[in-house]
Amino acid sequence: MQKPILAKGTRDFNSEELYKRNYIISVIKDNFSKFGFNPIETPSFERSDTLLGKYGLEGERLIFKILKSGDFLKDVNKDEIKDSNYSDLTSKIIDKALRYDLTVPFARYVVQNQNNITIPYKRYQIQNVWRADRPQKGRFREFLQCDADVIGSKSLMQEIDFISLFDGVFSDLKLSGCQIKINTRKILIAICEIFNCKDKFTILTNQLDKLDKLNREVVKDNLLKADFSSKEVDSIFEVIELSKNFNDNLEKLKSFFKTSNIGLEGISDVEYIFNYFSKNKLNKSDIIFDIGLARGIDYYTGVIFEVTPPKNISLGSIAGGGRYDDLTEIFGLKNMSGIGISFGLDRLYLVIEELNLFPPIPINTVKVLVLNFGNSFSYDLIEITNYLRLNKINAEFYPDAVSLKKQLNYANKNKIPYVIFYGEEEKENLCFNLKDMNSGDQKSLTKDKLIKILSEK
Amino acid sequence: MQKPILAKGTRDFNSEELYKRNYIISVIKDNFSKFGFNPIETPSFERSDTLLGKYGLEGERLIFKILKSGDFLKDVNKDEIKDSNYSDLTSKIIDKALRYDLTVPFARYVVQNQNNITIPYKRYQIQNVWRADRPQKGRFREFLQCDADVIGSKSLMQEIDFISLFDGVFSDLKLSGCQIKINTRKILIAICEIFNCKDKFTILTNQLDKLDKLNREVVKDNLLKADFSSKEVDSIFEVIELSKNFNDNLEKLKSFFKTSNIGLEGISDVEYIFNYFSKNKLNKSDIIFDIGLARGIDYYTGVIFEVTPPKNISLGSIAGGGRYDDLTEIFGLKNMSGIGISFGLDRLYLVIEELNLFPPIPINTVKVLVLNFGNSFSYDLIEITNYLRLNKINAEFYPDAVSLKKQLNYANKNKIPYVIFYGEEEKENLCFNLKDMNSGDQKSLTKDKLIKILSEK
Repeated sequence: MQKPILAKGTRDFNSEELYKRNYIISVIKDNFSKFGFNPIETPSFERSDTLLGKYGLEGERLIFKILKSGDFLKDVNKDEIKDSNYSDLTSKIIDKALRYDLTVPFARYVVQNQNNITIPYKRYQIQNVWRADRPQKGRFREFLQCDADVIGSKSLMQEIDFISLFDGVFSDLKLSGCQIKINTRKILIAICEIFNCKDKFTILTNQLDKLDKLNREVVKDNLLKADFSSKEVDSIFEVIELSKNFNDNLEKLKSFFKTSNIGLEGISDVEYIFNYFSKNKLNKSDIIFDIGLARGIDYYTGVIFEVTPPKNISLGSIAGGGRYDDLTEIFGLKNMSGIGISFGLDRLYLVIEELNLFPPIPINTVKVLVLNFGNSFSYDLIEITNYLRLNKINAEFYPDAVSLKKQLNYANKNKIPYVIFYGEEEKENLCFNLKDMNSGDQKSLTKDKLIKILSEK
Repeated sequence: MQKPILAKGTRDFNSEELYKRNYIISVIKDNFSKFGFNPIETPSFERSDTLLGKYGLEGERLIFKILKSGDFLKDVNKDEIKDSNYSDLTSKIIDKALRYDLTVPFARYVVQNQNNITIPYKRYQIQNVWRADRPQKGRFREFLQCDADVIGSKSLMQEIDFISLFDGVFSDLKLSGCQIKINTRKILIAICEIFNCKDKFTILTNQLDKLDKLNREVVKDNLLKADFSSKEVDSIFEVIELSKNFNDNLEKLKSFFKTSNIGLEGISDVEYIFNYFSKNKLNKSDIIFDIGLARGIDYYTGVIFEVTPPKNISLGSIAGGGRYDDLTEIFGLKNMSGIGISFGLDRLYLVIEELNLFPPIPINTVKVLVLNFGNSFSYDLIEITNYLRLNKINAEFYPDAVSLKKQLNYANKNKIPYVIFYGEEEKENLCFNLKDMNSGDQKSLTKDKLIKILSEK
C-alpha cells in the first residue's frame, strides 16, 4: 500500500475548478478568434537541442529533461562518469525536454512550416508549460499559457491591436482597472546611450524590473554599485516619473531623449499608440507608459507590455508580451519581426476568484437523476434516461436499488437539481414523478410534459 | 543555425487539424456530459513511485522518465556506477514520470480525494498520455485519451450505459457500422477452469488477443506449444464461434459452461446486456459477443469492451474499456468496483477522415479582412475592425500598406470570405466597400448595413 502524493508544484483539478478555468479560457479563445488568430499546438516535449541554449543559464536549470528510453548509458563511457559532473552527463543521457514556454516551439514551428504559412502569420496557442521553479502563490511547475503572436510585419498598428485585445479579454471577464503598462526597449537602449553605458544594459534593466518589488533606495544602491553615478540614477528615476504621465510630459520626454535617435523613435512609437487611445478609450483598463518597465526576456527589441491586476489585488503580472525581431533566426529564418502576448491563466484565475467575478458555475452539469426502486425497473430506468439524453438533457440513473435516502443524498451532494421517481405506481399510470430538489415541488407528468419541463429549465 | 526537427513520434497540429480534432473532442465531451460525467484533470507528470510498478515490465519500459532537477548525481555513489546497469541507476536519478495512461492517475486521484467525492463517482478525463512506443500509423508518442469511468457500484446497468455511450458518440459523429465487441473476464477464467489450466490464463488471453491479427492456425500452434491439447483448442475455437451469434446459441453456451459457476455468471451477465439491446436497438453500431476478445490489461475483472471501426476500414480498435475491481487498492482503498471506457482520438480521427465524415470545418475563423490603403487610414482601420469585433464578427486589418494584390492574396490563401475596401472615397462618403471573395460581388454599405450583412452570413 502506497500513500498517494502529487509531484511537487503540480495540481489536480476537480470539475468545479475546471469549469471555472474553462470559463476564462473560453473568454480568451473567443477574443483571440475575434482578433483574427487561429490555434496551433506543438508537442509537450521537444528534442533537447531545440530547447537548450535558448533561455539563459537560469532558464536552462528550470527545464525538465527526459531520460533517453532504454539503455541511456549506452553511449556513456562509465570510466569517465566518476570524474564528470552532472551537467556533463546530462547531455549524454537525455534527448528530450518538456516545453518551457510557447515561444521557442512557435519559432521552431514557423521555420519548419514556412512554406505552408502566409505572412503576416497570426496564431494562438493555449498549452501547458513546465518549469522546475520553486512553487509559490500563483506559481506552479505545470501551468497553462495562452499566447497570441503575429510575425512578419513591423506595423505599430499591431501594438495597438494587442492592447485592444488585452482590454477585450478583461471586458468580457468583467474585470475593471487592470493596468496595461507599456514601454519600449528602444527607450531603455537610449538611456544607456545617453549615459554612455551600453555595456550595462542588462544590469540596468534587471534593476528597473525590481522597482515594483523593492524600495527605490535599494535599487539606487544596486545601480551605484554597478558604477552608475548618483546623478544618473536620479535622472533615470525622474524620467520614469515623467513617463507615467505621458500626454502631459511629452515635450519634456522628447527633450530628455533629444540626443538619441533610437530614444526619439521610441517616444514617437509610444506617441502613435497613445494618440489612438486618446481618441478611442479602452473599455475597462488603464494604459500607462512606464520607462521603468523592462521585462527580463532577452529577445524583446521594441514595445513591451506588462499587465498588472487592479490595485487592490497584490499579485504580480497577469499578462505580458512585446515585440521581438529575430526569434526565428535561431532556427535559420531571418527578418521576421514579430509581436506577441501571453496570459497566465493561474494568476487570472486568482484575480477573478478574489474579486468574485466568476459567473454562476455548476459543479455538475447533470440536470436530472432517475431514482432506482428495484431491479424490476432497471431496463425502464435506462430507457427513460436515454430518452432524456436524446432530448439533450444531461441525465443519469442511480445504478443500485439502495435506500431512497442514500439516493437523494447523492443528488444533493452532487447538486443535481431534479430527480425522477419511477416505481410501481408510475409504471402502471405511464407517468413520471418529477421532484425539484431546490423547491421540494413534486409533480406527476407524462413523458412529453417531462421533456418539456426539463428542456425549459 | 539549427535545422528544426520534431522529437520522434510527436506532431504539430495546424489550425485545420485542431478544428477537426476539436470537433471530435466536443462530440465526445457532449456525450460524456449527457451521460452524467463531469471532468477532472491530473498533472502531466506524477512522482515516479505513483506510476512505476503498475504497468508490467513492457509498460514500464515505455514510460518517459524525468531527470531530477539540479545535481541528480547527488545521491549516487559514483564508484558504484561502473558496475551498475542503467536500470539500477534510473531509480536514483529520476523522481518523476510522464502520465502513461489516465487510469492509474485517476485511481490516485480517487484515493487522495475520497473524502470529497460521492460514491458512485463518475468522472471524465480528456488529456494527453505519453508512451515510448515505436511510432506507426495511428500510433504516436504523445496522444490524447478520452476516458470516462464510474467507480463504487457493481451494477450491470452501467455496462449497458457505456454501450449506449459508445453508440451515442458514433451517432453524433455520423459513423455507422462500428462493432462493439464485448466479453467478460469471467468467461475466460471459466475456460481455464473447464480445461484445468488456471496457470495458463495469461498465455491463453495473450493468444486469443492475436486472433484478429494472426491466422487461426498460428494461434493454435502457439497454444499447442503451451501444452493445450488439440481437442481443447478446437473446443475453444468452437465456443468462440458460438458466442458471435449469442441470441441463437444461448442454450449451447450455457451447456458448455454448465460445470463452471463463474462461467454461467458470465453468460448471465452477457444475457442481461443483450436482452436490453434486443428491445432497444443501438442507433448506429453493432454489438457482438466475442469470447475471443481478451484485452491484455491486467486489472480487468468483469465485462470488457473493444470497439473496431466499420469493416471497410483496416485499423485496430478505436475505443475500449471494461470493469475492474481493485484498481484503487494499489493506493489503499479497497472494494471499489469500477468500470470505464476510453476513446483513442487519433484512430477516431483517421476513421472520420477516411470516411469523409467531417462536417465543413474552416481553416480560419476570420470572416472579414479590412484592407490597408495607407498610413493615413490606419487609425480608421483599427476602429472599424474593433467595431466589427464588438458586433461579434471575427475581423482583422492588414497591418501594412502593401499592394492590393498582396493583400487580396493574403485573404485568398487564408480563405477569408470577405474584405472591406476603405480609402479616400469611402472615408469621404462615410461608407464601406464590402467584397464577397467567393462571388466577387462588391457593395458600398453604411456602417449599420455592413454589420447587418456580416452578422447574417
